[in-house]
Amino acid sequence: MTDSPASFGNLIDGKGIARRLTDRVKAEVEVLRERTGGLPGLAVVLVGNDPASEVYVRNKALQTHRAGMRSFMHMLPESTPQDELLDLVARLNADPQIHGILVQLPLPRQIDPVAVTNAIAPSKDVDGLGEVNAGRLSLGVPGLVPCTPLGCLLLLQETLSVLRGLHAVVIGASNLVGKPMAQLLLREGCTVSIGHIDTRDTRGLAREGDILVVATGKHGLVRGDWIKPGATVIDVGITRVPTEGGKTKLVGDVAFDEARQVAGHITPVPGGVGPMTIACLLHNTLQAARAQLDVPA
Amino acid sequence: MTDSPASFGNLIDGKGIARRLTDRVKAEVEVLRERTGGLPGLAVVLVGNDPASEVYVRNKALQTHRAGMRSFMHMLPESTPQDELLDLVARLNADPQIHGILVQLPLPRQIDPVAVTNAIAPSKDVDGLGEVNAGRLSLGVPGLVPCTPLGCLLLLQETLSVLRGLHAVVIGASNLVGKPMAQLLLREGCTVSIGHIDTRDTRGLAREGDILVVATGKHGLVRGDWIKPGATVIDVGITRVPTEGGKTKLVGDVAFDEARQVAGHITPVPGGVGPMTIACLLHNTLQAARAQLDVPA
Repeated sequence: MTDSPASFGNLIDGKGIARRLTDRVKAEVEVLRERTGGLPGLAVVLVGNDPASEVYVRNKALQTHRAGMRSFMHMLPESTPQDELLDLVARLNADPQIHGILVQLPLPRQIDPVAVTNAIAPSKDVDGLGEVNAGRLSLGVPGLVPCTPLGCLLLLQETLSVLRGLHAVVIGASNLVGKPMAQLLLREGCTVSIGHIDTRDTRGLAREGDILVVATGKHGLVRGDWIKPGATVIDVGITRVPTEGGKTKLVGDVAFDEARQVAGHITPVPGGVGPMTIACLLHNTLQAARAQLDVPA
Repeated sequence: MTDSPASFGNLIDGKGIARRLTDRVKAEVEVLRERTGGLPGLAVVLVGNDPASEVYVRNKALQTHRAGMRSFMHMLPESTPQDELLDLVARLNADPQIHGILVQLPLPRQIDPVAVTNAIAPSKDVDGLGEVNAGRLSLGVPGLVPCTPLGCLLLLQETLSVLRGLHAVVIGASNLVGKPMAQLLLREGCTVSIGHIDTRDTRGLAREGDILVVATGKHGLVRGDWIKPGATVIDVGITRVPTEGGKTKLVGDVAFDEARQVAGHITPVPGGVGPMTIACLLHNTLQAARAQLDVPA
C-alpha cells in the first residue's frame, strides 16, 4: 500500500480530509442557492450549562455559518421541562427554513433523550440517532447516518481503495458509534466483527481486523500487539489525561506510539476522527436540505 | 454440556420448543381475555397466487385461530394496485380489533414492498420488518422483532444456559434473518461476527463460532470442518432437492450428517427453525395486543 495524499507517513490526515469535505459542502451550498434560491438551515439546541457541550454547540453553529448555511442556536436553561423542549422540536420540525435539527446530548435528567431524539422529524434528524434513521441504516436504505461513524467511513474510503471483502473489527458497541459503524462497514461489503465489554478475547478479535475501529472510551486500551500488521486503525476515543509536566493532553483508545509501528495507516488523536464529525454534520445538513428542497445530489 | 429436555441426543427439538411456546401463548391469550375482555387479532394479507405463499398464509391464519386469537385473512388478486393495498393497510391500522398485520412477501412487481412494510403501524408490525422496528432492534429498545431470528434466539436460549460472552458467527446478511439475528445476539452480550457473499474465508470465520447461525439459502454450504467442535449450530436454510429415488426432500444450508458429528447441538431441517417462525408470530401478536390494550406481560 503506498501512501495516499490523505496521509503523512502512515498517519491518516483527518484534519485535511475534513477541510476538503467542508470546502466541498460549501461549494455545493453555493450551487444549491444559485439553482433554487434555497439555503440549508441547521438548528442546534443546547439544554443546560455543561461547559464541554457549550463548546461543541458553538463550534457546530459557527462551522455551519462558515459553510454558507443558515445557522440557528437555541440555548435553554438546565431546568427546561421536557414538554417545552418537545414543543420547540415540533416548531423546528414545521419550520421550512430549518432542514436539520440537532439536540446536543447529554440532556438534564428530567428529559428522556430517546423521546426527544425520536420527536425530531426523520428527514431533519442530521445526527441520525432516531429510530427511523437507525432502521434505515440497518436495512441498507438511504437515510441520515450518525456523524462520527460516517466520518470514520470516509477516512477509510480515502485511505483504502477497496473495502469490500476486508475483515473489519469494531471494538465498542454503542448506539452512537460502534453499532452504526458495524452496519456501515457491512453495507460496504466488509466481513464485520463487533467486540465489547463482554468479549472474552478482545486482543485476538482485534488482531483479525484488516480494518480496526476502536470506540470504547478507555484510553490506551489497544496495544501494538492487538493490531494485525498493515491494518488500517481508526481511533475514535478521545480522553484528556495528565502529563508528567503537570499539564494535560488528549489521547485516544489506541496506544499510539506502539500501534504506529504495526499499523499500515492510523488516525492520530487529536486530528483524526474528531474533525470529521463536524464536517459530516455539514454534509448531512446539505443532504437533508437537498431532500427537502427536492434537488438531487 | 448435558442434553437438555429441549434436545434428542444433540438435536435441538424445534418442533417441541415451538409447541410449548404456542401452548404458552394460548394460555396467555385466555388470561388476557379473562382480565380485559380483549382478544388479540392478526390480519394476514396475500396478494397474488404464489402457491408457497398460499400455504404459508393459510398456516399462519389457522395457527392464530387455534391459539384462541381472532384471525383475518385478506387474499387479493395478482393485479392489485399499490394504492389499493396501502388503503387496506390504512384500514387495518385503524381497526381496534386488529393488533397485528402481516403482508406476505414477495409482492407482485407493481408494488414496492418497502412502501407497504413501512405503511404498517409500527405497533402492529408483527413481522418486525418496518424501519421503525428495525431501528428499535438496532438501538436495543423494546419493539417487534422479526419472527425467524427471534425463533433462532429462543432455540439458543433453550439450548445454552448463558449466551453472554460467547462468540456468535452469523453467515448471511439479509434484512430478514442475518442482520436482525446479529443485532439480537449483540443485545444478548455475544461477540458477533457476520459473514456473507463477499467474505474471503467463510470457513475460517464459521469455525470461530461457539454459536453458528447459517441463513444463506445455499443447501449444504457449511461442511463438518467449518464447525468448531461443540458449537451450537442453527440452520435457517430450507431447500427442496431431488433424491436418488426420484423423489424430493427438504435440506438445510448445513451438511447435516457431517455437522452432527462435530456440533454440540444442531437443529434438524425440517423440524428445527421452521416451526419456531409461526410460534414467534403468535408470540409477537400477543405482545402487540398487550401493548395496544395497555396490559403488562
